[in-house]
Amino acid sequence: MSLIVMKFGGTSVRDIERIQAAALKIEQEIKRGNKVVVVVSAMAGVTDTLISYCKSACLQYDEQEYDAVIATGEQVTSGLMALALKNIGIKARSWHGWQIKLVTDTAHSKARILRIETDELLKSIQGGTVAVIAGFQGITEKGRVTTLGRGGSDTSAVAIAIALKADRCDIYTDVDGVYTADPRIVKNSSKMHQISYEEMLELASLGAKVLQVRSVEMAMKYNMPVQVLSTFENAIGSDLMGTLVVKETNMESKVVTGITYTRDAAKITLIGVPDKIGIAAAIFTPLAAANINVDMIIQTAATPQGRTDLTFTVGKQDLERAVKVIEENADKIQYTEITCLKDVSKVSLIGIGMRSNQGVAASMFRTLAEKGINIIVIETSEITISVLIKDEYTELAVRALHAAYGLEN
Amino acid sequence: MSLIVMKFGGTSVRDIERIQAAALKIEQEIKRGNKVVVVVSAMAGVTDTLISYCKSACLQYDEQEYDAVIATGEQVTSGLMALALKNIGIKARSWHGWQIKLVTDTAHSKARILRIETDELLKSIQGGTVAVIAGFQGITEKGRVTTLGRGGSDTSAVAIAIALKADRCDIYTDVDGVYTADPRIVKNSSKMHQISYEEMLELASLGAKVLQVRSVEMAMKYNMPVQVLSTFENAIGSDLMGTLVVKETNMESKVVTGITYTRDAAKITLIGVPDKIGIAAAIFTPLAAANINVDMIIQTAATPQGRTDLTFTVGKQDLERAVKVIEENADKIQYTEITCLKDVSKVSLIGIGMRSNQGVAASMFRTLAEKGINIIVIETSEITISVLIKDEYTELAVRALHAAYGLEN
Repeated sequence: MSLIVMKFGGTSVRDIERIQAAALKIEQEIKRGNKVVVVVSAMAGVTDTLISYCKSACLQYDEQEYDAVIATGEQVTSGLMALALKNIGIKARSWHGWQIKLVTDTAHSKARILRIETDELLKSIQGGTVAVIAGFQGITEKGRVTTLGRGGSDTSAVAIAIALKADRCDIYTDVDGVYTADPRIVKNSSKMHQISYEEMLELASLGAKVLQVRSVEMAMKYNMPVQVLSTFENAIGSDLMGTLVVKETNMESKVVTGITYTRDAAKITLIGVPDKIGIAAAIFTPLAAANINVDMIIQTAATPQGRTDLTFTVGKQDLERAVKVIEENADKIQYTEITCLKDVSKVSLIGIGMRSNQGVAASMFRTLAEKGINIIVIETSEITISVLIKDEYTELAVRALHAAYGLEN
Repeated sequence: MSLIVMKFGGTSVRDIERIQAAALKIEQEIKRGNKVVVVVSAMAGVTDTLISYCKSACLQYDEQEYDAVIATGEQVTSGLMALALKNIGIKARSWHGWQIKLVTDTAHSKARILRIETDELLKSIQGGTVAVIAGFQGITEKGRVTTLGRGGSDTSAVAIAIALKADRCDIYTDVDGVYTADPRIVKNSSKMHQISYEEMLELASLGAKVLQVRSVEMAMKYNMPVQVLSTFENAIGSDLMGTLVVKETNMESKVVTGITYTRDAAKITLIGVPDKIGIAAAIFTPLAAANINVDMIIQTAATPQGRTDLTFTVGKQDLERAVKVIEENADKIQYTEITCLKDVSKVSLIGIGMRSNQGVAASMFRTLAEKGINIIVIETSEITISVLIKDEYTELAVRALHAAYGLEN
């Protein structure tokens, strides 16, 4: 008998019918002879409604109250899922973040999990009750409600799987697996049956939007197998056929595994920054303090005058705030000019095979040049090559690269 | 400086605009130099929506999960009210039932308060922060969420006022006070400026729907002054002008203080019940166990054969369940026949003055007879006389009695 954590995202629990359909998936897993723990997101749309209420109530952002309000969305779903399970004769009970307890730090709206107190939970599970846990949330040591950030229910699920020493964490979502490229853009993209944590991490962080980055990092750290599968397309009774994210892969020897992209980015370049110790810290510390996520960071070689240009990207929605933060710290950073570019998009190749293959980057740049796409910035890591391009070229670039690296069905 | 608990009901927090209007009422109270603790209900309609979700998810009623789901409604409002207060520069924080903690027994959906742990709360209040408490909810010793029953936020408010040794508990609602009769039925009914706990208790339990019965019982027990006033009609800046519910009243010497009624009742009569010890217990114990509230209970004198008829009323919505419970216990109760009457209504006179006035009942029956209204059942207490009549005569009866006892404006 295995212990499986099953996580259902917002579209999988959008309404009562879908919650009941998910309950049948859970029943199926139990009939296979497995013990099951369920983690749920808020019903699709609920979190956004609650956020809009908060915004209307107060001009300022107050993370403690936002978290207290927003976490109720998952609490509602956990109760409804427990009811749906009882309705088909399965013993179940809901657990909110504070009941488990899932203790986090005090970084409201992006809290990190410190520990999960599983004693009560395990007792209930061992008594044959399916635990239905409200994802996305925890509490601080002082008992204030925290949330784990957008998509945080994935992280809840993986953390709970690890804490309970589960055999696998299944993430039910509205896609039936991870594809070599976004199927909405590349019609003949193909589903991967297995992928390494590292590749998944790049896919997740680069915009495949299938799993939250932190959940993959955590799964990798603790070697927890995670499966991505569809609530809708993987029919009841069928064998599981999602994408399994694991440590060891039996990937074919393809150099490039997949193509991904992030839209809604903005580029900021600081020109004439003094090339001296502490400047990077002077730039990125206040941005971090303002909870602005910085993605790419590229620094050019310094001029003989000891000046350098520093380029980085942030989410488009954070652009204005980021510029304000930079300008407030202008005396410490001492740049001569700041330039911004909205509406850029990062397109990336991902593949463990790239580690030992020198020609990949060159053929990427050539492919893009042939389509007349200008590369604004290039960044590489061991298993990715990313370029920043104008947003309007995104689809064209992704399709061209998908074809160039032979990823078609 | 006084400590005032201000409770806002569902219509007073229906949307963000009303929450902000309520925040201004709170500001006004603070500007008067008082410390304030706020208790809120769910936004009007939210609880019903959550209940309908629960009903759709599961055919059976599961009180633990219902409570866990439904209590989120008040939690959302408490966060939004804290935000609305911060928006006008008032330090505030939300408190959920489990955070305070407000510990109850395990009678889910109708839980009774065991104790309120005010240490943390008091520390926060004394630090100058307005506590905005989610009403209607508590937790069991084992940490499951409970709710206090419909209107339970009134009870939360009074219990918190008592625990914090507040000077007064103000209940903001959609009526501006307690009237001699329902103003929707009797156009010239008048507002009472002061009323005793006992009279209010009868009014509340008999359907005036202004305050939850338990909240009045609790206020009476601990002598906590409660004021009923309108969120809408008592303008900001005006002196308070609601109805004050207190121990001592300076009521005029009117015999009858007010007329009230309860609709949506149903009558059950058990015919030929053996007149022996334990029969009443055999009837009402299983009804209580099924959480069915019984209102009037009237037993006729036994026949020479040692048989009696027993009549009682329940909420119309509980009628079927009540009959089922009775029938399941038929062997213990040994009635010969069960008859039911739906769509009955209880109309009551209330007044401390009735204690020493014998003619009141007679004139009530005469007034009803003159209007051709048949009395099904009569029940009296020290300060009330109630009759059960056909529901369709309710308005006619209330208006006739209001006039007969000189309660007009």
